[in-house]
Amino acid sequence: MLQTLKNVLIGQPLRTSQLAHERLTNLKALAVFSSDALSSVAYATEEILLALALAGPAALGYSLTIAFFIAILLVIVALSYRQTIFAYPSGGGAYIVAKENLGTNYGLVAGAALLVDYVLTVAVSIAAGVAAITSAFPILHPYTELLALLAIAFITIANLRGVRESGSIFAAPTYLFVGSMFILIAVGLGRWLFFGGLTQAPSANQDLPVLGGLTLFLLLRAFASGCAALTGVEAISNGIQAFKEPVSPNAAKTLTWMAGILVSMFLGITILAHVTSVHPSGSETVISQIARTVFGTGPLYYLIQAATAMILLLAANTSYADFPRLASLVAKDGFLPRQLANRGDKLVFANGIILLGMLSSLLIVIYRGETHALIPLYAVGVFLSFTLSQSGMVRHWLRGKHSHRFLHVLINGLGAASTGIVLVVIAATKFIHGAWIVVLLIPLLVWLFWVVKRHYIDIADELRLPVTEKPKSIKHTIIVPVAGVNQAVAQTISYAKCLAADVRAVHISVEPEQTEKLKAKWQAWDPGIPLIVIKSPYRSVLNPLLHYIDRIERREGDDVVTVMLAEFVPRRWWQLALHNQSALLLKAALHFRPHTVVVSVPYHLKH
Amino acid sequence: MLQTLKNVLIGQPLRTSQLAHERLTNLKALAVFSSDALSSVAYATEEILLALALAGPAALGYSLTIAFFIAILLVIVALSYRQTIFAYPSGGGAYIVAKENLGTNYGLVAGAALLVDYVLTVAVSIAAGVAAITSAFPILHPYTELLALLAIAFITIANLRGVRESGSIFAAPTYLFVGSMFILIAVGLGRWLFFGGLTQAPSANQDLPVLGGLTLFLLLRAFASGCAALTGVEAISNGIQAFKEPVSPNAAKTLTWMAGILVSMFLGITILAHVTSVHPSGSETVISQIARTVFGTGPLYYLIQAATAMILLLAANTSYADFPRLASLVAKDGFLPRQLANRGDKLVFANGIILLGMLSSLLIVIYRGETHALIPLYAVGVFLSFTLSQSGMVRHWLRGKHSHRFLHVLINGLGAASTGIVLVVIAATKFIHGAWIVVLLIPLLVWLFWVVKRHYIDIADELRLPVTEKPKSIKHTIIVPVAGVNQAVAQTISYAKCLAADVRAVHISVEPEQTEKLKAKWQAWDPGIPLIVIKSPYRSVLNPLLHYIDRIERREGDDVVTVMLAEFVPRRWWQLALHNQSALLLKAALHFRPHTVVVSVPYHLKH
Repeated sequence: MLQTLKNVLIGQPLRTSQLAHERLTNLKALAVFSSDALSSVAYATEEILLALALAGPAALGYSLTIAFFIAILLVIVALSYRQTIFAYPSGGGAYIVAKENLGTNYGLVAGAALLVDYVLTVAVSIAAGVAAITSAFPILHPYTELLALLAIAFITIANLRGVRESGSIFAAPTYLFVGSMFILIAVGLGRWLFFGGLTQAPSANQDLPVLGGLTLFLLLRAFASGCAALTGVEAISNGIQAFKEPVSPNAAKTLTWMAGILVSMFLGITILAHVTSVHPSGSETVISQIARTVFGTGPLYYLIQAATAMILLLAANTSYADFPRLASLVAKDGFLPRQLANRGDKLVFANGIILLGMLSSLLIVIYRGETHALIPLYAVGVFLSFTLSQSGMVRHWLRGKHSHRFLHVLINGLGAASTGIVLVVIAATKFIHGAWIVVLLIPLLVWLFWVVKRHYIDIADELRLPVTEKPKSIKHTIIVPVAGVNQAVAQTISYAKCLAADVRAVHISVEPEQTEKLKAKWQAWDPGIPLIVIKSPYRSVLNPLLHYIDRIERREGDDVVTVMLAEFVPRRWWQLALHNQSALLLKAALHFRPHTVVVSVPYHLKH
Repeated sequence: MLQTLKNVLIGQPLRTSQLAHERLTNLKALAVFSSDALSSVAYATEEILLALALAGPAALGYSLTIAFFIAILLVIVALSYRQTIFAYPSGGGAYIVAKENLGTNYGLVAGAALLVDYVLTVAVSIAAGVAAITSAFPILHPYTELLALLAIAFITIANLRGVRESGSIFAAPTYLFVGSMFILIAVGLGRWLFFGGLTQAPSANQDLPVLGGLTLFLLLRAFASGCAALTGVEAISNGIQAFKEPVSPNAAKTLTWMAGILVSMFLGITILAHVTSVHPSGSETVISQIARTVFGTGPLYYLIQAATAMILLLAANTSYADFPRLASLVAKDGFLPRQLANRGDKLVFANGIILLGMLSSLLIVIYRGETHALIPLYAVGVFLSFTLSQSGMVRHWLRGKHSHRFLHVLINGLGAASTGIVLVVIAATKFIHGAWIVVLLIPLLVWLFWVVKRHYIDIADELRLPVTEKPKSIKHTIIVPVAGVNQAVAQTISYAKCLAADVRAVHISVEPEQTEKLKAKWQAWDPGIPLIVIKSPYRSVLNPLLHYIDRIERREGDDVVTVMLAEFVPRRWWQLALHNQSALLLKAALHFRPHTVVVSVPYHLKH
């Protein structure tokens, strides 16, 4: 039944040899790798405004300055990653770059940061995507959490089925989003600059309570919130192998395009938010408000919302490729449980996909599907991995002999320094709003990595087998606990007799009458092995049997004692409640006893 | 660790030979067997008043008439049970009497009714006991549910430890309750009749909204509610063997005393409630109100409340003897899972005790610990078992040759008829308030009894072994799935080699490189058995192995295929997450495969 369910949900398995890479044109690659980065436009401006709003409507004007600094930071990071693309043409994720250049521990910190980040990418993107839908259809607002969980379930199943990062699937929604955003910006700015008539957003008149003064701390906090716009910029440098030859120049060109599009959209939306005087609101996103103001609530408005929701779904989907892949790399190095390194039926890392689905669903439940509540946790991991990756690159250039070495060091050094400073700003300004969780979680994860690694190393040492150690001959006895004479017992004894010479049936006598009956039956049946009766004045079946095993081990010097039980396999699950209770207890008790093997000989009931 | 916890909670085990019966004097027997019946005085009057109150304060006066009829009914039932005592000197519970005289199905109906009734006795008595405490200490009122659950946990553990129905433990609280109640009644009535000065209860002035007219239906409903006073009257007839010789006359004398005390207390309390004009209230019991009015809130008041709470605790405790005992009788007849018939370490039927604790806790949670909410479910089971038991007695007298046969038939016939009519009244007037649950539950239980019985009969047929069927010789192969060469595999192969001549190591090849390494290692090690490599293009370890087993069975005509796995037993529980995943999957998949035995050879890790 489970197998059937699995086949319906996941589909037929695929051969290992079907594992192949599609080589993408730059146009398709841009779509595949930039959905995460571009989609952050959907919430980055809003997060800046939400932070500034604490100081009242007048403070909202600073959004332009902050967006400008974020744009500069984005250009620096993009330049920095261009260099990674050329230095690591086979793919330079932060885990690999940091591990190779800075050492294992830095690699693990980057790995932990990225794993946390991928989980948050799913949660944040899905939450923002659902917000785009509930902004268009406010009637759905009470079902935010449910919609988000359904979306995660959908993506998880789709990925277990083995959705490829197929260019064709990604291209349409990505370019639809980019296209519709540029139309929105063009029409909005055009009406404002040339044609007049761009009205204020309805929320412009709403009261915005002033909860505090406009401090430098608040400005830095708004900047830190807006830095969510940079998440996903590193995606191309991870996936260089998917580009056509020559891979590095193609990837670099695509990265430049992506950065250009992202900066334009982010600045455009922030300017539009400013000129329409949008106030951030809990029930409608900033993008939705702008689109309503520019287009009215017509077809173009719904197109914008649909495109936003779709690209956010795609952004979440990219984590479903990245998280399991990184988890498998870490697991192959022995820092995570091995089963995360196995490819499942559909060639995907199924365990990693399921883990990601569960963790992000948990975040959605804890934070009730609200983007704004998740954002403080988000950017810490991203900027930590940026910083480590760029620092690793600086080390890379310093160690080897490269032309233009100084320029390389300068660019990556600038990247490392600026992302490092931003990391500190983010951790400090958002610490009490949730960043502390990630600040604690990352070292905890690194510690767990080492606990796992140490265990695997210890076990490997313990299990090492010298080739001179041949299989030994073993002296052993088989004990068959017997409560009655029946087909199941007969089957077990037949099996036991063909495995060993020394088989003993043992009866734990709780009720003397029953024991006498059993003895008589045994004699009549005469299976050729002795029936040993042990009295149990305390009615326990377990303890007398354990004592008997101890005695055999001591007196007869057995290497192994095998306890062989007849176990009923009923036809229906509820019948389990009517059988096997003593067998279960016995198995549980003997599981931790050394030199003891418990064998269940299943008897399949027909009724 | 679990063993230690068990020892602390439950204590050391007892020998079967320690199972002995204490013979009780009539005085002690009265205490042991009547706590259930006498304790119902604590809530019976209140339930009558609560029903009448729906028709406004004027209707409360009918409580006297209703109490009078209930007293007559009680006398009839007591007379009827006197006859059972003489006819069944070894104990005549409703299950046995109905089964012997009316047939198995009637016995099962009585058994189901009693089991339901015992669970409800615990829930109702505990709820009423907690109400006695919260009436005295209103600050505890919000913790009603918690207090009730703690009380059930306490009684459950005490019974698992093997509390005997020791006369000495029971005597003090029972006679304290009876004594204090009689003092309350004497002082109250004395002040009213002779000395004057008995004031009205504070609640007498409270408004009582009139929710309906005083119909015959309402009167019958009030009567049905008051019939809770009769619960527990049958206890003495179940426990005759605990009396001193001559058992029947002693038991009959005790029953008469109990009925007399119960009738006096019940009528006395109902009269006092009437003359103090108590209005029933959600936050304070009727008994508590009467005691406050008669004594004031002084030491005597607190004594009454304490004695009431204690006897209710004892009443709940009697079900902890009755329920497991009846369940074990039904289980021995094959109608309930066998483990309910086993005596545990402490000679008690531990599984029945645990089941009772869980079911009554569930009722407390569902009904939020409110006596009044539980009462509609209560009396149906009791009166059903009364009716069946008395009808069985009528049949008993009709079948045999007895002196005074006509008188016996008349008395038990009157008992059967009157309890039968009351049963219909209770089921009808309280149907929508909860009685429907029990009306559905009892037939459902009887159906389940038969499902269990049928299964056991079928299995017994299936397992029957002719003595001519000796253990057969079996042709079998041992397969050892191998992923690497290590100590655990070496141990498993040593074990396998000493069990069978035909042992094959099987490697499922998922990654060709790893397979080549393994082959080389195997050759170097040379354990004396062949390594069979099976390619798995779909990376599943399970399916190729299953196909291989199929092939062996088909081609070589094996009777049994044994799959032998090395299983790691880690030192710490969390390490389980790092091992054995494939082994678990394999075991689960092979569990339902016929002619296949899975053997886990445990390798105890040192790290």
